[in-house]
Amino acid sequence: MANLLNPERSSSALNRLPQLRIGLLGFGTVGEGTYRMLEDNLASIRRKTGADLSVVRIGIRDEKKSRRAPRELFTADNMGIVIDPSIDLVVEAIGGIDPALSLVEAALDHGKSVVTANKEMMAKHGARLLEKARAKQIDLHFEAAVGGGIPIVQVLKHQLAGNDVPMMMGILNGTSNYILTAMSQEGRPFDEVLAEAQLKGYAEADPTNDVEGFDTMYKISILASIVYGGPVPLESVHREGITGVDAIDFEYADVLGYTIKLLGVAEELADGSVRVRVHPAFVPKAHSLASVNDVFNAVWFHGDFVGDLMFSGRGAGGDPTASAVVGDVIDVARNFAAKGTGSALPFDPPRAAAGMDDLVSRIYVRLDVLDKPNTLGRISTAFGDHNVGLAAMEMRTTDANHGEIAFLTHPVREAQFVAALEAVEQLDVVYGVGNWIRAIEVTK
Amino acid sequence: MANLLNPERSSSALNRLPQLRIGLLGFGTVGEGTYRMLEDNLASIRRKTGADLSVVRIGIRDEKKSRRAPRELFTADNMGIVIDPSIDLVVEAIGGIDPALSLVEAALDHGKSVVTANKEMMAKHGARLLEKARAKQIDLHFEAAVGGGIPIVQVLKHQLAGNDVPMMMGILNGTSNYILTAMSQEGRPFDEVLAEAQLKGYAEADPTNDVEGFDTMYKISILASIVYGGPVPLESVHREGITGVDAIDFEYADVLGYTIKLLGVAEELADGSVRVRVHPAFVPKAHSLASVNDVFNAVWFHGDFVGDLMFSGRGAGGDPTASAVVGDVIDVARNFAAKGTGSALPFDPPRAAAGMDDLVSRIYVRLDVLDKPNTLGRISTAFGDHNVGLAAMEMRTTDANHGEIAFLTHPVREAQFVAALEAVEQLDVVYGVGNWIRAIEVTK
Repeated sequence: MANLLNPERSSSALNRLPQLRIGLLGFGTVGEGTYRMLEDNLASIRRKTGADLSVVRIGIRDEKKSRRAPRELFTADNMGIVIDPSIDLVVEAIGGIDPALSLVEAALDHGKSVVTANKEMMAKHGARLLEKARAKQIDLHFEAAVGGGIPIVQVLKHQLAGNDVPMMMGILNGTSNYILTAMSQEGRPFDEVLAEAQLKGYAEADPTNDVEGFDTMYKISILASIVYGGPVPLESVHREGITGVDAIDFEYADVLGYTIKLLGVAEELADGSVRVRVHPAFVPKAHSLASVNDVFNAVWFHGDFVGDLMFSGRGAGGDPTASAVVGDVIDVARNFAAKGTGSALPFDPPRAAAGMDDLVSRIYVRLDVLDKPNTLGRISTAFGDHNVGLAAMEMRTTDANHGEIAFLTHPVREAQFVAALEAVEQLDVVYGVGNWIRAIEVTK
Repeated sequence: MANLLNPERSSSALNRLPQLRIGLLGFGTVGEGTYRMLEDNLASIRRKTGADLSVVRIGIRDEKKSRRAPRELFTADNMGIVIDPSIDLVVEAIGGIDPALSLVEAALDHGKSVVTANKEMMAKHGARLLEKARAKQIDLHFEAAVGGGIPIVQVLKHQLAGNDVPMMMGILNGTSNYILTAMSQEGRPFDEVLAEAQLKGYAEADPTNDVEGFDTMYKISILASIVYGGPVPLESVHREGITGVDAIDFEYADVLGYTIKLLGVAEELADGSVRVRVHPAFVPKAHSLASVNDVFNAVWFHGDFVGDLMFSGRGAGGDPTASAVVGDVIDVARNFAAKGTGSALPFDPPRAAAGMDDLVSRIYVRLDVLDKPNTLGRISTAFGDHNVGLAAMEMRTTDANHGEIAFLTHPVREAQFVAALEAVEQLDVVYGVGNWIRAIEVTK
């Protein structure tokens, strides 16, 4: 602001600032938001970085479309940008693997720092890319890959890095959270809410990536790789989406004191192994995550020294994501102005991955049953025979012969619960398992 | 962890790590927590920094007290630590101005990076200290000065630095929030809750610093100085504490859809001036800050690109504050290992300070009145004559002749409200003003 109002001071100061020339790949909502933020807030960004930043090229697929930036910046030759020796920093806002990965690799190979918003690329190839950046002593930042504008990636690398982290978890996918919030608050079925979300532009035509938990898996894996200091192979992550959550599950959740959220959870076990999982979860209403609604995201973090922290904000959208990209650009620019080396950390090999069998949690289970007097007794006995304790129960008659019973177990080892459930399913009074969902606890 | 389990790898790696020798000043809850965290989590901190950190001296007042660290580390010669050429980094955990300020100045003068948890020192002398650090190209970090373990200082400098910030605010004092929460939830008077908080160790024997808003003033001023790029003179900050908040105010707040919190608020006006204020505020129940209770702190941030964010966690206590100190130490260590220069930013001169007269907000006001039929009409008319619109009203009879009326105004310029209130006070049906409290809005 001050510089704009005082051109004399501005120009003399600018003469002394090192130039940072940025090549921007992609001009969708994130790319366009990034460009606009760097333009709109340029004076204060210059002051905060001590560098004169400018976007000098923008790589797109189709050069002919009209765009909100000067026409001469655009090119369809993306590879030309990443190998251009006059460009210092490449901002990748294309997304997905192809062609983003090969462009980012080429940029790093040509010694350019990279800022990316690409969660899929970082989750699948982050370890290799970070090693490349480290070897070249250049920066590779990816704050925007997780949580949109919520600062979490860099916070885990820096301010919270002194903590050992027994557990962290997050509501990391805005589309799923929008759908679950509407189902919870309006009692509507999944399909109907999904269709509405697609109409409003909150869900894509093919919603698989969001509602089947892939997006959340990428994000929690990236966070876990930072916190636990090694890559998280995606095949070690347990992943379930929200398509199986029924409107009736929200009613039982409510009566039992819970709501339902799609969570990404990462936890370190006593033996040093790490478990990363994505699934719908019963979240106690008293937990901070329970009130994170609509398209908002949140990360809940428990560190051995800092205790419980929560960060919440808009997890998607061009402008919030641009905020994260520009935050990274600012760090690269400062480092550039200070002639520092890159800040990538060494990764250890992956930690041993803990499976789901030994996970201990309360579990909600909903059964379709024959509505007869001895049904409850026989089911309870079957659970009891497998040492699964029942903490709460709700039931209702659905028609003349059918009933529904919902249980919340005491904390139970998952393999034990699954074995018990198999036995329960064999009972002639049980038609089938409607659903079962793990719960999380409120920590103190 | 991996290094501890693999001594061979650990020792060979350590041989190559640069040594970072730390002098710790103060061994109260924060100093002791910092020492313990660096010891407990040393292996992972070494891996994350690429440096071999160790606390080599601890400065205290009384060398003879028994302490939870090896006796040979302690010295009462604090100045000896800060001028010791073998020490690279000074961590200041004494607090207050004297002797902390002169020790920190001496450390910077001797070219040592400094990490401090000292909000009063940074609020009063931060600009000068940061300029000293910048001139010497060394680090001066102060994450722990605001919000305990909540990462906010560095987040404002880095990840959110690209945003223009129309407004940010926070619940920044755990003691006040504990007192207000108990008053709200239990309907108890201020004095009683304060006495209980003192017994529990949540409030000091002399609670002035907390309940009169000094602590919050230091913290919001520090945050504002980062966001708005210049020092905030404390004499420009409007400060009110919570001693005037009555139990009955919580009852009216509740009926009107609010709760009451002590807030620090910083906002930028259209003319580039900055208003920083500390006062109890009516917070709508739908606002994220309304549910931040007990000793928890939270910072709510609105950026032009990122939108609304909130960060919450434990704002005080040895271990959470140590987490912030160690986060800063890790950054200094990385910078040290990378042989980088310091990261202090230049401050502009202070922005023009906006006063309270032009603040536009809804205002809650409680009046003691003569309980007569025409009282409400006369008061409403007096407010109306001064163009103060009334949005809601509650009233009750307190004894035979006395009544109480509480109003919530429409948004009003503060000078206009104050003039209206003076006129209302002159009415013979008004005994006096019980209290008045500004409200904040829920932004979209």
